[in-house]
Amino acid sequence: MSNIVIIGGSDAGISAALRIRELNPEIIPTMIVADSFPNFSICGLPYYISKEVTCWENLAHRTRQDIENAGINLLLEHTAQSIHPERKQVNVVDKSGAIKAVDYDKLIVGTGAISLKPKIIGIDFPGVFFLRWMPDCFKVDEFLNKQSPKTAVIIGAGYIGMEMAESLTKRGLKVNVVESADSVMPSVDVDFGIKIREMLTQNGITVNNNIAIESIDKIGDQLIVKGTNNYEMATDMVLVAVGSVPNTTLGQSIGIDTGIKGAFKVNIKMETNIPDVYAAGDCVETWHRILKSYTYLPLGTIAHKQGRVAGENAIGGNKEFAGTLGTQSVKIFDKVVARTGLNENEANKAGFQPVSVDFETWDHKVYFPPAEKIYIRVTADQKSKKILGAQILGTYKTEVSKRIDIFAAAIFHELTVKEFSDYDLSYTPPLSSPWDPVQMAVQSLERKL
Amino acid sequence: MSNIVIIGGSDAGISAALRIRELNPEIIPTMIVADSFPNFSICGLPYYISKEVTCWENLAHRTRQDIENAGINLLLEHTAQSIHPERKQVNVVDKSGAIKAVDYDKLIVGTGAISLKPKIIGIDFPGVFFLRWMPDCFKVDEFLNKQSPKTAVIIGAGYIGMEMAESLTKRGLKVNVVESADSVMPSVDVDFGIKIREMLTQNGITVNNNIAIESIDKIGDQLIVKGTNNYEMATDMVLVAVGSVPNTTLGQSIGIDTGIKGAFKVNIKMETNIPDVYAAGDCVETWHRILKSYTYLPLGTIAHKQGRVAGENAIGGNKEFAGTLGTQSVKIFDKVVARTGLNENEANKAGFQPVSVDFETWDHKVYFPPAEKIYIRVTADQKSKKILGAQILGTYKTEVSKRIDIFAAAIFHELTVKEFSDYDLSYTPPLSSPWDPVQMAVQSLERKL
Repeated sequence: MSNIVIIGGSDAGISAALRIRELNPEIIPTMIVADSFPNFSICGLPYYISKEVTCWENLAHRTRQDIENAGINLLLEHTAQSIHPERKQVNVVDKSGAIKAVDYDKLIVGTGAISLKPKIIGIDFPGVFFLRWMPDCFKVDEFLNKQSPKTAVIIGAGYIGMEMAESLTKRGLKVNVVESADSVMPSVDVDFGIKIREMLTQNGITVNNNIAIESIDKIGDQLIVKGTNNYEMATDMVLVAVGSVPNTTLGQSIGIDTGIKGAFKVNIKMETNIPDVYAAGDCVETWHRILKSYTYLPLGTIAHKQGRVAGENAIGGNKEFAGTLGTQSVKIFDKVVARTGLNENEANKAGFQPVSVDFETWDHKVYFPPAEKIYIRVTADQKSKKILGAQILGTYKTEVSKRIDIFAAAIFHELTVKEFSDYDLSYTPPLSSPWDPVQMAVQSLERKL
Repeated sequence: MSNIVIIGGSDAGISAALRIRELNPEIIPTMIVADSFPNFSICGLPYYISKEVTCWENLAHRTRQDIENAGINLLLEHTAQSIHPERKQVNVVDKSGAIKAVDYDKLIVGTGAISLKPKIIGIDFPGVFFLRWMPDCFKVDEFLNKQSPKTAVIIGAGYIGMEMAESLTKRGLKVNVVESADSVMPSVDVDFGIKIREMLTQNGITVNNNIAIESIDKIGDQLIVKGTNNYEMATDMVLVAVGSVPNTTLGQSIGIDTGIKGAFKVNIKMETNIPDVYAAGDCVETWHRILKSYTYLPLGTIAHKQGRVAGENAIGGNKEFAGTLGTQSVKIFDKVVARTGLNENEANKAGFQPVSVDFETWDHKVYFPPAEKIYIRVTADQKSKKILGAQILGTYKTEVSKRIDIFAAAIFHELTVKEFSDYDLSYTPPLSSPWDPVQMAVQSLERKL
């Protein structure tokens, strides 16, 4: 019977453990978790800060009890200190400082990522926050409760930056978002980002683009944030949300090869170069299905998939990770932005000949009120006519996020624009049109190719 | 330059004409429409009766002007009286009774379907209605306005029956639905239908199953509806919604072969057996992608696809109809029911070895209120492990209809249950989970196979 040890209790680790239990209930995997928050939804942190989540304990995908009931041996507040591949052991240290050795036959490393800390002078001042783990979340919330800040600067207009812009606005702060790129949400094309920016502005948020923050000064209770293009803003708090970097120190110590941004190199079976050591989640390079190369994309959905593959293979399976499409969605105020595949910019860089269409229509038959406008940008390759990517912006609850998933399925199967009209999608007047908006958009793109 | 004539101005006809215009703007197709309502959304009729659609003109997918502006030659209120393949002409008669001949190089027949009129004694009494075309709709509305009926019996618990049950309830009537099958909505499995039935009951509708209606008597203003199992109900009005039959008299007169329910036989290029004559929409047999045989499924989405294929091929294209999966969705009160592929019953009949799972979860992370319960039934084949079909019931605006479309895509590509977890679907806490409910359901089914 296999002795499986998993380092890390977030998405990848839990997913691996559950898959093992599913496939072989005789195996009890051991999971080493540094803190006391296994399987917390870090995607939910902005909603705790906005108070839409009323109780932080609710953020657990599964409670400690759930995990133990599932047959997983949890070592909470145990830090994996060192790995010894030659004798197949992990040394862990508990809160008391006691060290013990945990044997493994197969090891799965899911050490995740940490917030990227950009080189900004003064970034360590009190009042400057990051948001990745529960303790970060508590710190921000405590600051809001005790200091009652009136203004915030958010550095970075990615997903977390956008969600936190809403969150802090809901807590009564006036928010200024600063982004080094020339639009918000660099994961969508610039023209599409402009629509999102307009929506932010309508919700009282100021957005400054093309600004690289260089320093933060502290004068009394005020933080003075300065950047390129003469940007200078006095604020009560700063949130740094410029992405994350893989947490790979431990794995590197045993010689696991690293690549992009220092993430572990893995093959599509989630094996590292060290025998019997797998890695999955935010700490690894991720195979991109369209680019047909590795990339770094720390997303919970991917971590779940990779963890599941690693778990299956660790107990003798032969499953391959099918690759990511970078599918993502985010709710910002009453809108949802979603994307999958490659945007035009990414497609250009990858050597495709991308052609895009911007298509605007109603989410369902306009005669059944209220219908809402939905904006779809689709990109295809001029040469192969295959759909490369899609971006959608629409009102919350107009099925934007699952509409992007129809594209995700089509791109997964490398469908051409013409074939996309063959999909037998559902229609009823209160929810769609006889050709769903996604098909109308692709038909419009077909006319351009 | 090709002379294309289309008989019928509903989904199939319009879709064919628009495809022709899209591919070759030099061709001006001629469209013969018997009434003055081209391209009306017959799926929208229940919402006109419920008064959610305030103005019947809004039910037009496109106005007469839109259609003419698109470069289509409309002959409204012209009935195609006869077809003469030997000289490639259609004889049409206008309102005045004048007959003229219209020449064609290629003819597309999209004569649609008519309401199925079951053999029920007294079915022609005033107060007994059907609902398929605009005039039907006006008749029902006029009756409601003038007679102020208090009660209605709806014969048939299919899609239109369900929508009309809601519609008439909204107009203040007490509704009794009578269905010959042992559950409502025979397009879903019985256990799933029971959930829908419960929901109807909660909305004040009485449902009687396993009853075949045999007669309608008229006593004063009351209609007495009688059926098997001693069913007897006095009511102010009756709506017969037991399906439709293809309208093929004209086509049969020139020898177009017919099959199931008398629908035209066509190949996957939408060609009939008569040279240069295509047919599409509710008047034809439809290729089923999973059954790999023909079936009869009069749905707007299918008519659009078949029309598009017929249009393309009529001007020299070589497009094949990819086949239907029977994807459908319907909103009933605050719920949505959607289905695609084969249900277990259909799969059994087709010789598969179906295994199903009933899975209940939240539409999105429950920590972000309000999350809603969603019920998913998935069926796969024990032998091939391929997903055969899915059924979903959930609250309106929980992306039920586009979630069924993810299944529709997967089934289109004949995905196995295991491969379904490879789909890179979108996640954000207010809209989904790291594994979307559809994937959780399939993973649950995987454990049973």
